[in-house]
Amino acid sequence: MGEGPDRPRAGIVVTGSELLTGAISDANGPWLARRLADLGFEVAHVVSAGDRPEDLVRALDFLAGAGVALIVTSGGLGPTADDLTAEVVAGFAGLDMVVDEDVRAQIDVILADWGARAGFAGPALDEATRKQATIPQGSTPLPPVGTAPGLVVDRPGGPLVVVLPGPPRELQGMWPSALEAPAFAALLATVPPAHPRLLRFFGLPESEIAATLREIEASTDVSGVEIGTCLRHSELEVDLRPRPGAEAVAEEVAREIVARHAGRLVSDVGATVDELLAQALLERGLTVATGESCTGGLLAGRLVDRAGSSAYVAGGVVAYSNEAKTALLDVPADMIETHGAVSPEVARALADGARRRFGADVGVGITGVAGPGGGTEAKPVGYVCFCVTTADGVVIARDPRLRGSRADIRERSVDTAMHLLLRAVAPRGGTA
Amino acid sequence: MGEGPDRPRAGIVVTGSELLTGAISDANGPWLARRLADLGFEVAHVVSAGDRPEDLVRALDFLAGAGVALIVTSGGLGPTADDLTAEVVAGFAGLDMVVDEDVRAQIDVILADWGARAGFAGPALDEATRKQATIPQGSTPLPPVGTAPGLVVDRPGGPLVVVLPGPPRELQGMWPSALEAPAFAALLATVPPAHPRLLRFFGLPESEIAATLREIEASTDVSGVEIGTCLRHSELEVDLRPRPGAEAVAEEVAREIVARHAGRLVSDVGATVDELLAQALLERGLTVATGESCTGGLLAGRLVDRAGSSAYVAGGVVAYSNEAKTALLDVPADMIETHGAVSPEVARALADGARRRFGADVGVGITGVAGPGGGTEAKPVGYVCFCVTTADGVVIARDPRLRGSRADIRERSVDTAMHLLLRAVAPRGGTA
Repeated sequence: MGEGPDRPRAGIVVTGSELLTGAISDANGPWLARRLADLGFEVAHVVSAGDRPEDLVRALDFLAGAGVALIVTSGGLGPTADDLTAEVVAGFAGLDMVVDEDVRAQIDVILADWGARAGFAGPALDEATRKQATIPQGSTPLPPVGTAPGLVVDRPGGPLVVVLPGPPRELQGMWPSALEAPAFAALLATVPPAHPRLLRFFGLPESEIAATLREIEASTDVSGVEIGTCLRHSELEVDLRPRPGAEAVAEEVAREIVARHAGRLVSDVGATVDELLAQALLERGLTVATGESCTGGLLAGRLVDRAGSSAYVAGGVVAYSNEAKTALLDVPADMIETHGAVSPEVARALADGARRRFGADVGVGITGVAGPGGGTEAKPVGYVCFCVTTADGVVIARDPRLRGSRADIRERSVDTAMHLLLRAVAPRGGTA
Repeated sequence: MGEGPDRPRAGIVVTGSELLTGAISDANGPWLARRLADLGFEVAHVVSAGDRPEDLVRALDFLAGAGVALIVTSGGLGPTADDLTAEVVAGFAGLDMVVDEDVRAQIDVILADWGARAGFAGPALDEATRKQATIPQGSTPLPPVGTAPGLVVDRPGGPLVVVLPGPPRELQGMWPSALEAPAFAALLATVPPAHPRLLRFFGLPESEIAATLREIEASTDVSGVEIGTCLRHSELEVDLRPRPGAEAVAEEVAREIVARHAGRLVSDVGATVDELLAQALLERGLTVATGESCTGGLLAGRLVDRAGSSAYVAGGVVAYSNEAKTALLDVPADMIETHGAVSPEVARALADGARRRFGADVGVGITGVAGPGGGTEAKPVGYVCFCVTTADGVVIARDPRLRGSRADIRERSVDTAMHLLLRAVAPRGGTA
């Protein structure tokens, strides 16, 4: 925790019984938390509440008690009786509920279509329209992205409440208009900018960054900067969030960390390996092909995840069996016999075979023991061989032992392959 | 919302500043919510709290005010000064903190190793050990799965508090011993069993299930059953949770829903398409091969996701370019010329080609327009052609227009292919 002037606090309430049975995990809380933190708020709490009105009331009171200047809610704006958020928020803000005719006209159009699909019509549909057009008096309606309008509710003397729909696409789509609502814009004008810095490293153990931070703290007062480190997608993320006035310190700390671990830096501006790899392949006009065993197509899937990837992904083969490795990627049968299917030699042959078969510039081969069975003393579960080869002779090979469950090992294998590909096509000094 | 006797309520507190900056999304809340709901609790709230002790105190007070009988916390049990959960919970329960010598002995062994890796030693390590062995007086320590012990804290007159570590693997690993702790076991003995029923359908619109539920409600009092529907992985899930005494009604409702939509039922015992497909392939001794275009390896990745999948996954090809479709999967170049790369004809050729090239019993081909670019009037973004063929002559083809973003379309394509594969190898009456 840092010291220094506090940032204004914000709270998030996500509604929906399905969040409380564990049927679904909440996407809106983290999304909103990131947006609010980047706007300069300190997010105090994310609270989930079910469909009971008293639970939602209690959640709003709890956040108000935590001293937040802003509450953002998601969900409970639909046309059915279960959808109670607007009414509860009106009660919280001490406002009456009134029908807004402009909103009713907007919803009429949208709900006619929705009603037809959901089998609602006649009085039920009119009731749904009226319900969704009923908003807290004096609040600012936000135009629907799906079927439900959002709300900005300015409670005199209390926190500002921004009420958004639950479907993530609708919530995210409505966010820009929420930011422009006069009451929210006025609040934002008082919030000191966040200036967050996100550094991302690959292959850097947490203990090394901990040691670096201890050394920096010994010579610099970093109490104004909140420093978080977390392992994500096999990368070590260092998140620096200066309190107002500590921006220069954060900048200095970031510079110092980068200077000490430059060889393992992925990005100091928050870019992902996926973005950097796509950019490097496009800039250099290169294509890539995959030969996967234990990752079973996940690397290819990750590569084509980006729009426009057909420009640089030639294709891939998932060669699970030895016969497929030989028949589809020309891995010599006697190589598999001699070295085993999981070996640096076969990883290289998979990379070369994929590159040649697809006529690509860069090939990547992965073969390993994902477990839970199949491990031996020499090649235990988690032992994975990687190789990236290019038409102009670059060869990068690794054979680490990765930790975790079968799913972890496969995910980390894909992460590792992405980073090795990046090093092959956009080399950094001294790390490949 | 149903009526009837209430279930005992439970609350969850997840700690960690990284949850509040949106850097990471919380896996523990949904996991715990599902466990608690299945044990028969009604989960009232999931609250996230940062590293400030007062925020954690406020969250505990909030849940106690919501009338919960049980609070489960995750995180904040580590050896550093930021890890405050045990101390805050002791304050909440009105208990002193004391060093537990048995726990200290356990931790000594574990932390010696941790300290060596993290660069801690000497007085700092002793301090870390002492801190983690200091627990609320009279509480039950739970043996560490990682480095931190958990706690079961029985607050006289207040909710029982179960304190678990933050890393999901440690939390999940510790859960069985938490359930066995005397105070938790005693509470569980008073909780009415949940008897949840989960029905899963594919290809059933939400509007149809809504109509079915309206009809059932017209003739049956279902007020004792909480009925949730949600779309997940392209399936419609219907979740029935009877309040105590309403188990027979839930059973009847489940039977009625299944009877009306039997042709689209995936499972009425909560089994997933992944499980059912793996089981059918294994039982029948069949192997499968994939020929993917727009899904780029994600289907192969999903198939090999299960341990033991090498018994039934022969392999796959990601053939993004027309040349690769022809060279690696024998799709005739003139077929692509005539019908286009995205066509039912090519989907079938991909399925047949994959099946033959890998010597598999079942082949699946996918080709479509994942977008955002590349759509035409005849073949818009979201148009995806599927074909499953088997060596003994089964052919199942579909060419739906799927909705959503590029990622949605690809994910739904993989879901659809899984269901078509299941229908090909484990046919249900009248649906294929």
